[in-house]
Amino acid sequence: MGIAANVTIGNGVSIPQPDLVNLYGCTVGDETRIGAFVEIQKGATIGARCKISSHSFICEGVTIEDEVFIGHGVMFINDKTPRATSGDGTLQTEADWACIPTVIKRGASLGSGAVVMCGVTIGARALVGAGAVVTKDVPPDAVVAGVPARLLARSSGK
Amino acid sequence: MGIAANVTIGNGVSIPQPDLVNLYGCTVGDETRIGAFVEIQKGATIGARCKISSHSFICEGVTIEDEVFIGHGVMFINDKTPRATSGDGTLQTEADWACIPTVIKRGASLGSGAVVMCGVTIGARALVGAGAVVTKDVPPDAVVAGVPARLLARSSGK
Amino acid sequence: MGIAANVTIGNGVSIPQPDLVNLYGCTVGDETRIGAFVEIQKGATIGARCKISSHSFICEGVTIEDEVFIGHGVMFINDKTPRATSGDGTLQTEADWACIPTVIKRGASLGSGAVVMCGVTIGARALVGAGAVVTKDVPPDAVVAGVPARLLARSSGK
Repeated sequence: MGIAANVTIGNGVSIPQPDLVNLYGCTVGDETRIGAFVEIQKGATIGARCKISSHSFICEGVTIEDEVFIGHGVMFINDKTPRATSGDGTLQTEADWACIPTVIKRGASLGSGAVVMCGVTIGARALVGAGAVVTKDVPPDAVVAGVPARLLARSSGK
Repeated sequence: MGIAANVTIGNGVSIPQPDLVNLYGCTVGDETRIGAFVEIQKGATIGARCKISSHSFICEGVTIEDEVFIGHGVMFINDKTPRATSGDGTLQTEADWACIPTVIKRGASLGSGAVVMCGVTIGARALVGAGAVVTKDVPPDAVVAGVPARLLARSSGK
Repeated sequence: MGIAANVTIGNGVSIPQPDLVNLYGCTVGDETRIGAFVEIQKGATIGARCKISSHSFICEGVTIEDEVFIGHGVMFINDKTPRATSGDGTLQTEADWACIPTVIKRGASLGSGAVVMCGVTIGARALVGAGAVVTKDVPPDAVVAGVPARLLARSSGK
């Protein structure tokens, strides 16, 4: 519960509800703000001056660069075909799957309720609409929305 | 953690898991029920006899009238183009954005996993389907669903 | 807060964040793993060797068989037309609605952010894509995705 001892936290990070988050083994950059009910797994990296809003889940394999906005209830993924057990019916272990990385480039914004499939890169300053399901790369400055997410505009205009 | 001292709570409000919610600066009407893992921000107003289900996020600028049902994992929004930082790369402050209001009228029901864009009004007794992304006003008594949400029926029949 | 005394827990169940879950009146099978910010209601049944990921909500009426993977932020539903109040404007009670059951068969996997309407059966080993809204039965071994979820392939190939 809360922030594990193995989290690397930058200067001026704000986590107003430390008892209502679940952070372990991750890295959080300077001045980043993290809301309630957020889980960030080991091996995830969050840059500086980001905002990670409530109810979001950031898994191992995700790299979030500086100045990124993650809305509320955003879900990241690191496994294309997740299973509870291996073919023999025993629990999967870390040896049973490959973690597929995802990168969110500097200054991008992901709207609330967005889901990001593994293996994609979301370009710098791109805007992902609320509720979008991102299944492929998003170019820098693009605006995407929908399920699956489609290009709405080439420039986010901001 | 829990319910801040500056929350205005009506009579007979039920919050069975007070340590697992994050409520601050909001108003909650009589007999309303609030589930676990719910965040309600300052300036949000919840009416009487509402049900706010687990995992939902209600932001500043949202007004929920009486007898409204909010499903599980429903996300509200108050900013059309959210950013972590201002143009100069410093953290956004309250001066950097305008809170766009949203109104949910009496007796409406929002299904689980719905996302509600800012600036919309959802009419009285309307039904929003589970997983819908509401991007524009919903007429009273209407049934909408999908991404973006489209009109399925003029009357919710109940 | 946490795990109520009336939860039936199997052998070897793993709940690393017991203070950040809300489990009551449910049954959890042997060796199942449950993440943070998960709520499981009374009357829900989870099988053995399942993985229930963070931020998911499993309601009364849901039966999850053995070896099922539930992603992050998955929402189940047990009421087709939820309302906060009855026709007379008073709070709904348990007498005012019928709980519609849902079954997830052995070895199925539900991607993160999926929403499952009540009354459906998801077949054995089926894969539900991330962010899908499941509105009808999914055949065994099928792959479905989208809003509403549509069949992408007959065999999940794994």
